[in-house]
Amino acid sequence: MALRRTLGLAARPYSQGAAKDWLTEDFLDALRAVAGSANVSTATAVREQHGRDESMHRCRPPDAVVWPQNVEQASLLATACYSRGVPIIPFGTGTGLEGGVSAVQGGVCFNLTRMDRISALNTEDFTVAVEPGVTRKALNSFLRDSGLWFPVDPGADASLCGMAATGASGTNAVRYGTMRHNVLNLQVVLPDGRVLHTAGRNRRPRKSAAGYQLTGLFVGSEGTLGLITQATLRLHGIPEATVAATCAFPSVQAAVDSTVQVLQAGVPVASPQVRPGDCLEFLDDIMMIACNRYSGLSYPELPTLFLEFHGSEQSVEEQVQATGEIAQLNGGSEFLWAREQEARNQLWNARHNAWYAALALRPGKKGYSTDVCVPISHLPAILVETKQDLLASRLTGPIVGHVGDGNFHCLLIFDPEDPEESGRVKEFAVRLARRALAMDGTCTGEHGVGLGKRQLLQEEVGEVALSTMRQIKATLDPKNLMNPGKVL
Amino acid sequence: MALRRTLGLAARPYSQGAAKDWLTEDFLDALRAVAGSANVSTATAVREQHGRDESMHRCRPPDAVVWPQNVEQASLLATACYSRGVPIIPFGTGTGLEGGVSAVQGGVCFNLTRMDRISALNTEDFTVAVEPGVTRKALNSFLRDSGLWFPVDPGADASLCGMAATGASGTNAVRYGTMRHNVLNLQVVLPDGRVLHTAGRNRRPRKSAAGYQLTGLFVGSEGTLGLITQATLRLHGIPEATVAATCAFPSVQAAVDSTVQVLQAGVPVASPQVRPGDCLEFLDDIMMIACNRYSGLSYPELPTLFLEFHGSEQSVEEQVQATGEIAQLNGGSEFLWAREQEARNQLWNARHNAWYAALALRPGKKGYSTDVCVPISHLPAILVETKQDLLASRLTGPIVGHVGDGNFHCLLIFDPEDPEESGRVKEFAVRLARRALAMDGTCTGEHGVGLGKRQLLQEEVGEVALSTMRQIKATLDPKNLMNPGKVL
Repeated sequence: MALRRTLGLAARPYSQGAAKDWLTEDFLDALRAVAGSANVSTATAVREQHGRDESMHRCRPPDAVVWPQNVEQASLLATACYSRGVPIIPFGTGTGLEGGVSAVQGGVCFNLTRMDRISALNTEDFTVAVEPGVTRKALNSFLRDSGLWFPVDPGADASLCGMAATGASGTNAVRYGTMRHNVLNLQVVLPDGRVLHTAGRNRRPRKSAAGYQLTGLFVGSEGTLGLITQATLRLHGIPEATVAATCAFPSVQAAVDSTVQVLQAGVPVASPQVRPGDCLEFLDDIMMIACNRYSGLSYPELPTLFLEFHGSEQSVEEQVQATGEIAQLNGGSEFLWAREQEARNQLWNARHNAWYAALALRPGKKGYSTDVCVPISHLPAILVETKQDLLASRLTGPIVGHVGDGNFHCLLIFDPEDPEESGRVKEFAVRLARRALAMDGTCTGEHGVGLGKRQLLQEEVGEVALSTMRQIKATLDPKNLMNPGKVL
Repeated sequence: MALRRTLGLAARPYSQGAAKDWLTEDFLDALRAVAGSANVSTATAVREQHGRDESMHRCRPPDAVVWPQNVEQASLLATACYSRGVPIIPFGTGTGLEGGVSAVQGGVCFNLTRMDRISALNTEDFTVAVEPGVTRKALNSFLRDSGLWFPVDPGADASLCGMAATGASGTNAVRYGTMRHNVLNLQVVLPDGRVLHTAGRNRRPRKSAAGYQLTGLFVGSEGTLGLITQATLRLHGIPEATVAATCAFPSVQAAVDSTVQVLQAGVPVASPQVRPGDCLEFLDDIMMIACNRYSGLSYPELPTLFLEFHGSEQSVEEQVQATGEIAQLNGGSEFLWAREQEARNQLWNARHNAWYAALALRPGKKGYSTDVCVPISHLPAILVETKQDLLASRLTGPIVGHVGDGNFHCLLIFDPEDPEESGRVKEFAVRLARRALAMDGTCTGEHGVGLGKRQLLQEEVGEVALSTMRQIKATLDPKNLMNPGKVL
């Protein structure tokens, strides 16, 4: 046996806690033997690239990064880590917003992006299987000529397996649901290296009542129960007709009242009955200013709804008309239409770039996005109160929201070097989360708990639910090696 | 302390295994002290009523039945059972089809039907909370003037909490999803009596990424992880227009090919694009004969699709036309329309009574319903093979299916006193399940695993998934007291 030689990395300023006895050349050789030397790195620059996501959480690099090429390698690498008590941190595109990739206890980062196969496309059944290196845009490019698409769209061009891991959703969830509704099966490498198929290998029925729903347990587990190495997804038909529109309102209240009324128009006492739009996005006046500046547009700088309607030509017309009438009753402007693909792209690019547009309001500063979600009836009140709180707290926080789901984000732009301002941001975010909790809502609609919302999770679900989650974690990951320090 | 006196019940022919030291007057007095004497029974007739559901599984009565009046009592009663090692079996309407209420190890049956409150109806958010005594019909009666309804409909007038426990679905799942998609939160009494709110007390956002999704874990757990004492449900707007139709086909293949084509017409290469019908039910020739006889109808005795379209007047017309064209291309008859409520009721009553109509084919005999579900593209092959197998096996097994989901049932009618015929039924059912497994499907789309499909569950999900399920069971119910002997 080669001489065990502890590397110097453990003394770096990032590292904490006990000395890492496991961090030896022997161990790294074991990783290299599985993945190949080119697919294991301890270079500082590489480690730092893997120690943070797009959130404000500070960089906590792993001790090493490995790139498994297939599930067999991922399994062997996990076994190597598990047997030595080494933390395992899954990494996709690094576009998370809650510090999910932060190596708070050090360990080995599994960068899964070199597993990027798309397989088992079945256009008759609307199903496909993707590995973690496949992003949502890559999948939709692949599907281009099939008439199908995968609609869940969190904004970033994230890894689909990563989206499953965080339970992502985004702009199309009103119509198509979140990742929870669109994942049929997962292949997962458990901490000890065993390979789990949550619904059984290759299975893809539209529904099942066979035993505990492990798929649903792993969707949203944020890498704390295992490494997702393949996701079988449900696809959808590209709609025959798509129309997008914007509508400006005199006040936040008017814009959100319109949203609530559109959603409620599914009830037949409303006439004519409409399906809620397929996208129903809200941008406040500050967000509109930011988008105009960033994307060189000239929309009215007023609280605005972005809407999209999918369907047949006829049904889209019907929805557009009914929704327009509701908007007018609330003092909304005439709809600005974008029926052509190019015009729609311009409109949605502005929406998708909201995060970067917000950051550009104060160049060089950092952003933190809140993520509360409340029952629709509470939306007007929470948005109005939150706008007041932003003013009172002297914070820059444009608001953008998937209001059709009751979910919105305050994009707080602040100077992380200024402890006083950082403190105000943190207090504001906690106040907003508690405001949502007091309205029967959640502190996170789609970003997850990650590092920063563990206390809020406890307040949200209560002691019994939290201890149940802890029991599940302890039994599936008894050594607490899977992405430790997150969620619980 | 009163004299401990073991009751004679343990010696009854139903009971098995170790003597029930716990079955004492003391213990029963403890139950009575919580629930009141009128709400505890050890009468033979009562116990036998609670020892079986609507399946062929033989009666295995519990040792006692209790009727908690509220969650506090349910919790105290569970604590009393848990501390003495007594099995707990939840009971709703007893309409299950997989022996889920069978007291295979004896114990105390919790009949939850006297907890029957409907609360927290919010018509703006489309949410309501129901206790286990509330059936789907009772809820829809309660909602009658609200413009809302709860669409999940397994046929039987089941308890909604029971439907959550089994992960039920039924005729409306193509459009509205299964129980998994329509339960927002559950209140659960854990085996040790603690009260869990799976998404946090009173929470009801449309989506959440807060921690592990315990709601999804308990939906479909078949009473093996805890007693569901309240479910918060998502409601839907009653559609402005509803049209029902039947269409007869020259062959099974033609009927199912039409189904597949209708579902695939969501793709824009098809013109015009249609939404898949909101109900898409298949009845084979034998089932049509049975329905005509039982309900006094005169439908053509051919493979038939029952369809239903929901929406605005205009969109319904559009769908009806497009679907009709697909059916004609496959040799289907003209649609028989039922636009009025009364005609629709007659049509759907015939469908809902399919189980009883099948039983009436051989009066005095028993029925067993298979429940496989496959990806849609495999439906034609599996249905044709299954019809051939029925003939070769000389079995009476009319077929009815939620074919829009790829799920169908063979209602096998047989003489349980005839071991040779019973053997053929069992062999046929296992062959059918394995046929579905070979086609990437599941042995149970909606009835659950219960007593009879535990071996098939293992074949379906594999050893790693099964051991993961067992780990979850062992950690949440370490004494194996919650509905023991089911699922795993």
